[in-house]
Amino acid sequence: MKKLTMLCQQFRDQNLLLPIWFDEGKLWLIDQLKLPFAETVLEITTVAQLAQAIEKMNIRGSGAIGIAGAYGIYLSALINKGDLGKIKEDGELLKATRPTAINLTKTVNEILSVDFTKGDVLETIENLVIEILQRQLAFEHRLGEFGADVINDGDTILTHCHSGAMAGSGYGGRALSVIRKAFEQGKNIHVFTSETRPYLQGARITAYELGKFGIPHTLITDNMSGYLMQLGKIQKIVVGSDRVAANGDLINKIGTYMHAVAAKDNGVPFYTATSSHTIDLSLAKASDIKVEFRNMQEVLTLNGQRIAPADTKALYPSFDVTPNRLIAGIITERGVFAPSEIGKINL
Amino acid sequence: MKKLTMLCQQFRDQNLLLPIWFDEGKLWLIDQLKLPFAETVLEITTVAQLAQAIEKMNIRGSGAIGIAGAYGIYLSALINKGDLGKIKEDGELLKATRPTAINLTKTVNEILSVDFTKGDVLETIENLVIEILQRQLAFEHRLGEFGADVINDGDTILTHCHSGAMAGSGYGGRALSVIRKAFEQGKNIHVFTSETRPYLQGARITAYELGKFGIPHTLITDNMSGYLMQLGKIQKIVVGSDRVAANGDLINKIGTYMHAVAAKDNGVPFYTATSSHTIDLSLAKASDIKVEFRNMQEVLTLNGQRIAPADTKALYPSFDVTPNRLIAGIITERGVFAPSEIGKINL
Repeated sequence: MKKLTMLCQQFRDQNLLLPIWFDEGKLWLIDQLKLPFAETVLEITTVAQLAQAIEKMNIRGSGAIGIAGAYGIYLSALINKGDLGKIKEDGELLKATRPTAINLTKTVNEILSVDFTKGDVLETIENLVIEILQRQLAFEHRLGEFGADVINDGDTILTHCHSGAMAGSGYGGRALSVIRKAFEQGKNIHVFTSETRPYLQGARITAYELGKFGIPHTLITDNMSGYLMQLGKIQKIVVGSDRVAANGDLINKIGTYMHAVAAKDNGVPFYTATSSHTIDLSLAKASDIKVEFRNMQEVLTLNGQRIAPADTKALYPSFDVTPNRLIAGIITERGVFAPSEIGKINL
Repeated sequence: MKKLTMLCQQFRDQNLLLPIWFDEGKLWLIDQLKLPFAETVLEITTVAQLAQAIEKMNIRGSGAIGIAGAYGIYLSALINKGDLGKIKEDGELLKATRPTAINLTKTVNEILSVDFTKGDVLETIENLVIEILQRQLAFEHRLGEFGADVINDGDTILTHCHSGAMAGSGYGGRALSVIRKAFEQGKNIHVFTSETRPYLQGARITAYELGKFGIPHTLITDNMSGYLMQLGKIQKIVVGSDRVAANGDLINKIGTYMHAVAAKDNGVPFYTATSSHTIDLSLAKASDIKVEFRNMQEVLTLNGQRIAPADTKALYPSFDVTPNRLIAGIITERGVFAPSEIGKINL
């Protein structure tokens, strides 16, 4: 318990923006649903509470959810005094909260599949959780180093949605690891964060994190990036990605494609910052995926306020497809790849 | 007075959505700032009240403001019992409300420059106002007829911002005249209206008008059009335009360019519906114009509600430039022109 508590303290000393942490024998998490208007910290003392927080998306982002799963197993081990049967039950509970979040399932399975016969269960789990946290952080630094190489002094960088610290270990997640690393290297950069309708992750979370890290930034609406590129005000685009296909196409938050196509039209290089784990070689091209259409209420409201006539219908495709021909590079923790190289990567 | 009152009644019988009208010896206008949440009608009994409504944008849109100017002169003539000195003073007051609204100035000047020696001042002005109203309506029908020719049965048409009835005489303004005419011709069409951040004219006004006219429509966020085009769900784009340059470039509401560039990438024809009066042959290309950057509070808020952290800065370029190479046709009341033909039009 002491090692994990100390690690969280060290992380905070390194100016990480932790989405979740362990202290005083329990878990704490920033309620991302309330950001940026309130920095509410939720106290988590049971696995059921954590499961609910994941389900309600108080904590979100693939890296952060994986980490939350690891913490959840440790909390279960503490509560159940190392009773493996009960810990495994809690693991199932956690995995069921976001069945499509592959990182959560993988992380929980990784912990539960180790050999517990060789030592104290609680200590074994604590050590594993520490390893997972350090691995995620190392991933973000490595990704950031590779990505920062494509950022020049003086660049203004557009990012979309939230691919940042609180979606990962707290350093910068994916796109923001690249941006933060370039900033920490002393490059004089500026960031445009596009608000990302309908859910406004860019306005709410990305702007919040950039503010926390002291990185100069400006909020724009999603429909402004093209004109700002025409005016020469954007030099790079760096966004996250939910999936990269074998041909180098990517799937990311709705609106990504329109930034990319405007970038191509203006000669602005478009990059995605992602984990090699999001590369799916079984997916030949991204347009083979059936993108989920979500609840239209998100589109009909802005921050909870209705914006259209009462009987208006809406559509909400949650993701879009950016074809490989629009992508300058795919930044991963293993280097920066051209889309055409993706199919040849040894995963 | 009776002729003008009757004309307004006839217009309403033709299912026009009048932004302003004359009845019971006074003016009435729909408060466009309150739409679609309340259909508030403002009663206007003085020219000062009308001037304030134009200034505060309770009534807006180039055609509608021109009409409002004409009604304002008639109201002044009524109040001042044909005293030309006082009517001219009121004309100056009206023109000063929106100094860059060329239609308002032109219309007021047109009325005040006629020969008033040949008959009763009040009757002369009433006849002129009627002529102006009928001319604007005829313009919308003619524009609509030309534009409807490019719309096919079964098309889904994307429009952006509000280029509709209440910005004109009440039939359909510019883009919506094309759409409405195609619909009235019995073509089975559907409309996507993009919300148009930051001010949400597409969600608020265009969706309202489409609902009033019974035209099937769906609201989307501005960043969705590209993906919907990838999916083959949009066959045409028709938007308004604030200015057309001699080379066929156009200037229109921010976000127009990104729809246009995504349309090009997907082989979807992009049209603007506009008046020949917006063609400015003295402007060689649209990028020569310095687009106004407006108050960033619009981007940071919705109806006064903040959407980003307290210290976030934002940018609000109000218009953007769509280069001629992205434009399939410029629909006017004189026909549909290729961008390359614009410079040769005899205006």
